[in-house]
Amino acid sequence: MQAKAKIRVTAFQMVPPPVQGLVRDLRVRWALEEAGIPYEESLIGQDDLSTPAHRRIQPFGQVPAIEMDGLELFESGSIVLEIGEKSEALLPKDAKGRARARTWVFAALNSVEQHFTALVGIDLFDANEEWAKLRRPAALEMVHTRLKDLSAWLGSREYLEDRFTAGDLMMTTVLRFLRHSNLVAEYPNLDAYLKRCEARPAFQRALAAQMKAFEA
Amino acid sequence: MQAKAKIRVTAFQMVPPPVQGLVRDLRVRWALEEAGIPYEESLIGQDDLSTPAHRRIQPFGQVPAIEMDGLELFESGSIVLEIGEKSEALLPKDAKGRARARTWVFAALNSVEQHFTALVGIDLFDANEEWAKLRRPAALEMVHTRLKDLSAWLGSREYLEDRFTAGDLMMTTVLRFLRHSNLVAEYPNLDAYLKRCEARPAFQRALAAQMKAFEA
Repeated sequence: MQAKAKIRVTAFQMVPPPVQGLVRDLRVRWALEEAGIPYEESLIGQDDLSTPAHRRIQPFGQVPAIEMDGLELFESGSIVLEIGEKSEALLPKDAKGRARARTWVFAALNSVEQHFTALVGIDLFDANEEWAKLRRPAALEMVHTRLKDLSAWLGSREYLEDRFTAGDLMMTTVLRFLRHSNLVAEYPNLDAYLKRCEARPAFQRALAAQMKAFEA
Repeated sequence: MQAKAKIRVTAFQMVPPPVQGLVRDLRVRWALEEAGIPYEESLIGQDDLSTPAHRRIQPFGQVPAIEMDGLELFESGSIVLEIGEKSEALLPKDAKGRARARTWVFAALNSVEQHFTALVGIDLFDANEEWAKLRRPAALEMVHTRLKDLSAWLGSREYLEDRFTAGDLMMTTVLRFLRHSNLVAEYPNLDAYLKRCEARPAFQRALAAQMKAFEA
């Protein structure tokens, strides 16, 4: 970081091991790394989530949040698009390309993520609950439905559209939620896509930065 | 519609009564009405969702989708933002105002909607399932958590920010998902906010258009 950082990312100073490397500030860090924009961290604890100071920047008591040039934003999707507007590395310059990339950001967050996190919740946090045992088959089937849809769309493409965009960044972080299972590996083109995106140097730097915070 | 419509919205020709007035093309219709942009409908049946022709414009086999000026988009959030870029009625002109409105679009879809639809699924579709009976208390508690957070943010404001934006449009359609219950009414400022947004003439026209399709 040579320039004076004007950007402050709010993230956790610690989370339990099963979610380390999955917390949603990873998306923000990755977007900033792709865009080559330096940032500072503001690390908080679980106890800070309910404070008035945090609720003012994140009304639902979550992370991430960001302060950039006097603007305060929350929601990883919104923050990634805002960073994308500053860098062609995330959003193509042409209007159609930008709109398509944005559609995939929403698709990852709205049509895919909630079904994956439902299964993750059952498997990692509620596995011994009776409701979870009864519900798991349907939750798993829904995950397969989305993986199949996504695999069919991707086909032999390298990325969701004709180049890497914020949409791929977001979809990669969503596919990573299934890392406790071998589900993605059952779809070879998705597995290769996930590895292709995770191999990006900007992703590796972002992941290392999130994990480094937990070592302190 | 005086001008030749260049915009085609894909929606359902029929859905079961419990979800009439809630289908997500309502968001797109409402945004177009706020922006004063005429559109045509392309009404499809449930059987059409798996066709290659539909999957090409909606990879997950859902509605809505839109064709506008040669651009094909899916995901209601993405479409509403695209329409918003054509009209100050949905997104303020200043960069900060636009970014804040966009953050609320994501918040409605990502931090709120999934918790509401989880309860709706339990109450309307799985009420007799054993897992649903066991899970309902936690699902209801999560809905209250989000309603409380949202109510605290809103306070005595008329809208989520200092004027009506695409964020309010999206949050209104999310709050409507709870219409089978009296949950929103337990939070008087949210109840008034919901009614304030639903009273907008553009919303009324959009709702009437969605419902009209089901009468055919």
